[in-house]
Amino acid sequence: MSKIKLTKEEIQSGNYRELARAISAVENETTGYFEFLEALQIDYKVPVIGITGPPGAGKSSLLNALLKELSQNKRVAVLAVDPSSPFTHGSILGDRFRMNDFFLHPNVFIRSLATRGNLGGLSPKSIEISDVLRSAGFDIIFIETVGVGQSEVEIAMLADTTVLVLNPGAGDDIQALKSGILEIADIYVINKADQDNTDVLAKHLYNMLNLRNLSGWNPPILKTIATEHSGIAELIKAIYDHQGQINAEKRINLLNEKAVRLIAADRMKRFDYKKLRQELQELQATDANLYRFLKEQYLKSL
Amino acid sequence: MSKIKLTKEEIQSGNYRELARAISAVENETTGYFEFLEALQIDYKVPVIGITGPPGAGKSSLLNALLKELSQNKRVAVLAVDPSSPFTHGSILGDRFRMNDFFLHPNVFIRSLATRGNLGGLSPKSIEISDVLRSAGFDIIFIETVGVGQSEVEIAMLADTTVLVLNPGAGDDIQALKSGILEIADIYVINKADQDNTDVLAKHLYNMLNLRNLSGWNPPILKTIATEHSGIAELIKAIYDHQGQINAEKRINLLNEKAVRLIAADRMKRFDYKKLRQELQELQATDANLYRFLKEQYLKSL
Repeated sequence: MSKIKLTKEEIQSGNYRELARAISAVENETTGYFEFLEALQIDYKVPVIGITGPPGAGKSSLLNALLKELSQNKRVAVLAVDPSSPFTHGSILGDRFRMNDFFLHPNVFIRSLATRGNLGGLSPKSIEISDVLRSAGFDIIFIETVGVGQSEVEIAMLADTTVLVLNPGAGDDIQALKSGILEIADIYVINKADQDNTDVLAKHLYNMLNLRNLSGWNPPILKTIATEHSGIAELIKAIYDHQGQINAEKRINLLNEKAVRLIAADRMKRFDYKKLRQELQELQATDANLYRFLKEQYLKSL
Repeated sequence: MSKIKLTKEEIQSGNYRELARAISAVENETTGYFEFLEALQIDYKVPVIGITGPPGAGKSSLLNALLKELSQNKRVAVLAVDPSSPFTHGSILGDRFRMNDFFLHPNVFIRSLATRGNLGGLSPKSIEISDVLRSAGFDIIFIETVGVGQSEVEIAMLADTTVLVLNPGAGDDIQALKSGILEIADIYVINKADQDNTDVLAKHLYNMLNLRNLSGWNPPILKTIATEHSGIAELIKAIYDHQGQINAEKRINLLNEKAVRLIAADRMKRFDYKKLRQELQELQATDANLYRFLKEQYLKSL
């Protein structure tokens, strides 16, 4: 393809065609994509907000409400990471559809990132794409992950601010108390807060956070009803409050962690499956014991 | 830990304590686990049957029905692969619970393999554990995957026989027609076949299979009502029919593909995240452009 370009002027005029092409090039690793990344003027001050939580918690409605508020005076980009299931594709497309209100809004850019075909993993791609968005003149970037896999949770964790959305109705939310994301979110949102059990869940979260030896940021537990636009202003305030207190040390740590993911992904990509398959075919592994064969032929020499 | 042992005699008497310990050692990669794998007398003729499909298709009920039938005169092992979601843990445990009828049956061994903590990936672990089961005197092995991620589908594909379970009620099943697994299953099961749309789905599958240029095995489309034990005998017959026609070439191909996964996982495990994190911390990546930094410091030398 021709050289990948990105001009801020076009984006500021609400023309996202070039941006969409550039992101596709990064997603598909078209020739020249890495040079394009190297040439970016990345504004690392642009906040990247990860939004995650179990399916059905209302993440899309919440994003919709955030977009409604923020798009009035800010350029907002949303990267929606589709889950890795080849089966649930249909229902997720339905979710995406709900964000449609803003598909044509000049201040809003929405892009989804699908799992399939991303051999190196979703997490490095979302790092790269959010850096493209950070170079494109947006004021704030959201990464929404559907939370069905470890990698989606990891993506949310690599954001500057991680928002965990739960809903009081599902017993699963209490189960989620055991999972890693629950302990590291920067902001907790109980959406659909007009439902029963809201206070029970809030208390659970409060107790859990109190058990931690917190220094610095004290994660708020917010209640929202996204469909009624209730609690959205408080959530936006909490997001910017959290951004305000991110210090240089945390920024460097995040950057290092992203570097680790990108290097690991690069290693994986260099693994030559095709060559290995050919070699194995020639070696004709017998079916005596696969592990002895591997030890003799491969594992020692690696 | 002490040396990992596995004696067929104990297993044949229905004592699965040693087996459970051996599998845990493989799952957690306890010292000595690879030597244990190397010493196995693997019977590659023991069929490994992958069962996959979207959540709610009735895979657990189907397995229950298969176990009821097969356990009368066979030793059966089930490896249930939990999905990678940290959120849905609760509901999946519920699924597992339904298989409880057989937890104490002397001819049945049920084990679940959880995603979390398996950095090298689920697919290599399920290969290794099914080889342990193949060495332990079982007559048939089932690997059930919940089908929420690419890796779970991959696991089912690495089985000798792949059974895809769909149900006529969910529109998702039609969406699934686009996914990779749909094209490569060896046996198609429409479970809950007393529901509407059974024939519509059957026709969809039939047309899809007819479009393929099939040589050799002609994948059957079976209808079952697992909860009423309807269609189970036909499914068992289809499984053994498929097993009967697996030729040496296909066995070698499968073995090679498993070797590829195991070698790739080994490579990943050797990636030293800890050392890399230390190095990066010393290098103090500035936030000018992460990609230039990576190119200069890492990617070229890899």
